[in-house]
Amino acid sequence: MIKEQKKSREVRFWGWGMLGHSFDKDKARAFLEYLQKYYRLSELPDSFFELEDDAYVIPETRLPPKFVDRWIKKGLTLDNKERLIHSLGKSYRDLLRVRSARISHYADGVLHLLKKEDLTELYKDAGHFHITLIPFGGGTGVVGGTECIGVKNSPVLVVDLKKIDALLQLDKTAQTARFEAGILGPKLEETLNNKGFTLGHFPQSFEFSTLGGWVATRSAGQNSTKYGKIEDRVQSLTIVTPVGQITTNAVPSSATGPSIKQILIGSEGIYGIITDATLRISPLPEDQKFVPGFFKSFKDGIHCFREVMQEGTRPSVMRLSDPSETEMFIQIALTSPLKKRLMPYWMKYKKLGDAPCFFMIATEGSRDEVRYSDARVKHMIKKYGGAMLGPSLGDKWKKDRFELPYLRDDLMDHGFFIDTLETAAPWSQLQKIYFDMADAFVNQRGFKEKIVFGCHLSHCYSDGASLYFTFLGLQRKGQELKQWEEIKKIATDVIMENGGTLSHHHGIGYDHKRWMEQEKTPLGIEVLKSIKRELDPDGLLNPGKVV
Amino acid sequence: MIKEQKKSREVRFWGWGMLGHSFDKDKARAFLEYLQKYYRLSELPDSFFELEDDAYVIPETRLPPKFVDRWIKKGLTLDNKERLIHSLGKSYRDLLRVRSARISHYADGVLHLLKKEDLTELYKDAGHFHITLIPFGGGTGVVGGTECIGVKNSPVLVVDLKKIDALLQLDKTAQTARFEAGILGPKLEETLNNKGFTLGHFPQSFEFSTLGGWVATRSAGQNSTKYGKIEDRVQSLTIVTPVGQITTNAVPSSATGPSIKQILIGSEGIYGIITDATLRISPLPEDQKFVPGFFKSFKDGIHCFREVMQEGTRPSVMRLSDPSETEMFIQIALTSPLKKRLMPYWMKYKKLGDAPCFFMIATEGSRDEVRYSDARVKHMIKKYGGAMLGPSLGDKWKKDRFELPYLRDDLMDHGFFIDTLETAAPWSQLQKIYFDMADAFVNQRGFKEKIVFGCHLSHCYSDGASLYFTFLGLQRKGQELKQWEEIKKIATDVIMENGGTLSHHHGIGYDHKRWMEQEKTPLGIEVLKSIKRELDPDGLLNPGKVV
Repeated sequence: MIKEQKKSREVRFWGWGMLGHSFDKDKARAFLEYLQKYYRLSELPDSFFELEDDAYVIPETRLPPKFVDRWIKKGLTLDNKERLIHSLGKSYRDLLRVRSARISHYADGVLHLLKKEDLTELYKDAGHFHITLIPFGGGTGVVGGTECIGVKNSPVLVVDLKKIDALLQLDKTAQTARFEAGILGPKLEETLNNKGFTLGHFPQSFEFSTLGGWVATRSAGQNSTKYGKIEDRVQSLTIVTPVGQITTNAVPSSATGPSIKQILIGSEGIYGIITDATLRISPLPEDQKFVPGFFKSFKDGIHCFREVMQEGTRPSVMRLSDPSETEMFIQIALTSPLKKRLMPYWMKYKKLGDAPCFFMIATEGSRDEVRYSDARVKHMIKKYGGAMLGPSLGDKWKKDRFELPYLRDDLMDHGFFIDTLETAAPWSQLQKIYFDMADAFVNQRGFKEKIVFGCHLSHCYSDGASLYFTFLGLQRKGQELKQWEEIKKIATDVIMENGGTLSHHHGIGYDHKRWMEQEKTPLGIEVLKSIKRELDPDGLLNPGKVV
Repeated sequence: MIKEQKKSREVRFWGWGMLGHSFDKDKARAFLEYLQKYYRLSELPDSFFELEDDAYVIPETRLPPKFVDRWIKKGLTLDNKERLIHSLGKSYRDLLRVRSARISHYADGVLHLLKKEDLTELYKDAGHFHITLIPFGGGTGVVGGTECIGVKNSPVLVVDLKKIDALLQLDKTAQTARFEAGILGPKLEETLNNKGFTLGHFPQSFEFSTLGGWVATRSAGQNSTKYGKIEDRVQSLTIVTPVGQITTNAVPSSATGPSIKQILIGSEGIYGIITDATLRISPLPEDQKFVPGFFKSFKDGIHCFREVMQEGTRPSVMRLSDPSETEMFIQIALTSPLKKRLMPYWMKYKKLGDAPCFFMIATEGSRDEVRYSDARVKHMIKKYGGAMLGPSLGDKWKKDRFELPYLRDDLMDHGFFIDTLETAAPWSQLQKIYFDMADAFVNQRGFKEKIVFGCHLSHCYSDGASLYFTFLGLQRKGQELKQWEEIKKIATDVIMENGGTLSHHHGIGYDHKRWMEQEKTPLGIEVLKSIKRELDPDGLLNPGKVV
């Protein structure tokens, strides 16, 4: 195991989050014991390893001395640890590589940008010295969006935006707030909360990701069913490109030709660096009500969620687990052996069958709105035969909702892989995608190893929803990356062949690029490339990503 | 006056709508008498004119005979009346020109496209023969979006899409419907109504405009506050360009780079021809409730509307007239002199002051939703001191809501100009725009002639709303076009200087193009042009529009 000092504000470069914080030890143990039984292991595999100080052979920087001289006073650092941390994101593939110290591309330096105005000069110098620039927010991406690949062996400079994080303007009348792009989730939300507002945007990475990262990747938060994805919340934005700046018009809506804003949202650093965004904000909810419970089947739950959305009710959270993810949650949540043993009796008493599906619905807003929405939600749950639990489980879910990524580290410590993959599709396609995925993985029609497979539905719309898949199993020793690639390919092909989108909120980056033509059509890709040629004619920005 | 035969299915090429239908004669007379008094005219000016058969000197077609031979069997017509009808839209400027037979650019021919598959060959031939193509839906645009301007004197072929109008797919589960682009509003809505659904998209032009036109111009319907603008309703679309076809992925949402869909929506025929779109549809509302009434001031109404939106209530219609538009409506609606005389007493009794503002709010959806929303709306109206009228006025409004454009013809017949112009802006900017506009026109700080000025607020969002301005007055004889240009310039400058958008739902076309750099930034324009070069490298499509 990597020796860990309890420095709470230092990031864990080889895993999730901050040093000094981990997944609940009892729950992690309970889940690992469950996996041990499932795989009939006499003992847990041991992947602990000690990283020596010299484990990472980080090459000398290739940044030209002249460039270093010019920028060292403006936020540039060549510190090895900084370079390491900024060389990877937080995907399973990233963690595999960092844990084994097999990193093929290192950042040659990290620029902690001190002020937006420096960007113009930075682009000029980058062009002059042929330096590749990789915009970087919280570094929590899971699709290789900040992979440090240069062009023709050019030096790679990671541009970290986190020092650019001020509130620029708050318009209480229009309920909008303009923030600089490098602001982290908690600071943004706290700033708004103090003024009586919320953005309502809580991606799993909330604690460590930035506004700019959200906008650049079309991120979705756990409460997106009410508040929308980040592209719905951005009223306007500013991007600084190598050939100039664009600030889109800050208006609620317009009919002025193609939307420049929707070209720049999701641009993942290939067109320029997003420096600020004006966001639609909401009054802090007066009330919030949770309704957790179980449906007899995934199908019942899907029908219920669909009907809620199509009648126009807008809960903030609607999350439905399939039977196997439900089982996983029970194994993680119920650390008491007694409760675990009693659970099947409760299920039987509630007539939930042998494949119950856990759900969590939250409604929030004004007291009147919550009263109305909560009543509608409960009406629909009953209509589809769901059983409701007490709301306290909801408070618990809310408290722990950013914890799950930490569990991945415990699993990897003990020789398990765990990867997730998500899509969105019309309601009419969701079950087909789900069953084809289960067929490929559970029935081993595609992937031939025994795995733990789970799925949940969330982020609902009138015309469809997102499906989020979890794949967990024993690492294929010595072939860990190959195993990951196989899973990625099989799962993504199932999605693409069944009318799903390549990604609902993870983005494209490097890992999804090979499917982009299928997603966007070949001509669509040419359109995206033509914009790239216009805004970044010298190809300085984030090469090899998206298109 | 143009001699009019009562052919109800023939379009009125010199005015609005169909021959055989006009604005209510009593109401038109009542309003004209009001204008006569307002301008202290001893008699109404007389702009009647008779158009002789040979009034329009339509030049010989410039389409090459070889091209004509190839396409005459595939929907091409060189008929003069068809060419005339397809040479203009329906703006005041268009009507001025058609009524005076001063049309500088005529379509050289009209192709009633018979099948989408012909487009590929059409582009090939257009390239070969250097023919300019102008996509055309209902021809109801008001910004010169189909102005028949060629490139370097090239022949201009208008491509009318109205024969491509089938329902391709209905997905009752996902609640989406895929239609071909040439379908007219009433047929689309009837098709959906028969299956229990509605698109909920009712622009003023509804009866005569097409789905493709709506999508190409980012149109908004009167019920957009609940159902969204057309860009919110399009789940995906197909465009056929000179270099190939793009069908965007039909999913509820995605994080797959920049949105190609939002590049093509609003492209106004400069990138290609939209051939079909998959639309989000809604169940036919179980119930609909109207609440008409008056506020004491425009400001009270704005505050009320804002609070309704920001607490999350979503009426379908929210429309608020300023005092002068309210006065106009009263003059038009109350044909009985007695009622007209009693009106001020009722206003006094209701303590509405001397500048009351008419409003109309509609809620619709499930019975439960309407019960909730209607109660919230009424609560807010009371909070802001509004007086409510009986709902019957709402039914009347709904019945007559597509009638108003006909009145323009009566006004033009009698020597008046009438033009409208719209924007959208954050709530915090709306009053500033309104007062600056009133200052420019009512106080004659900008426009020096005495006019009748009106404004209403509609199409509401959490962060702002649309303002719609009406300018009405005596035509400046012999300088009608110059007068129109002056108004357009003064009004648009007021909008652009105060943080409004160049257009909320009319589009850009030819008339708004000069302000596009201000709206999109110079670099934004370059982005739009780079896409044009990619999709239409030979510049065949709708030149001189948008960018």
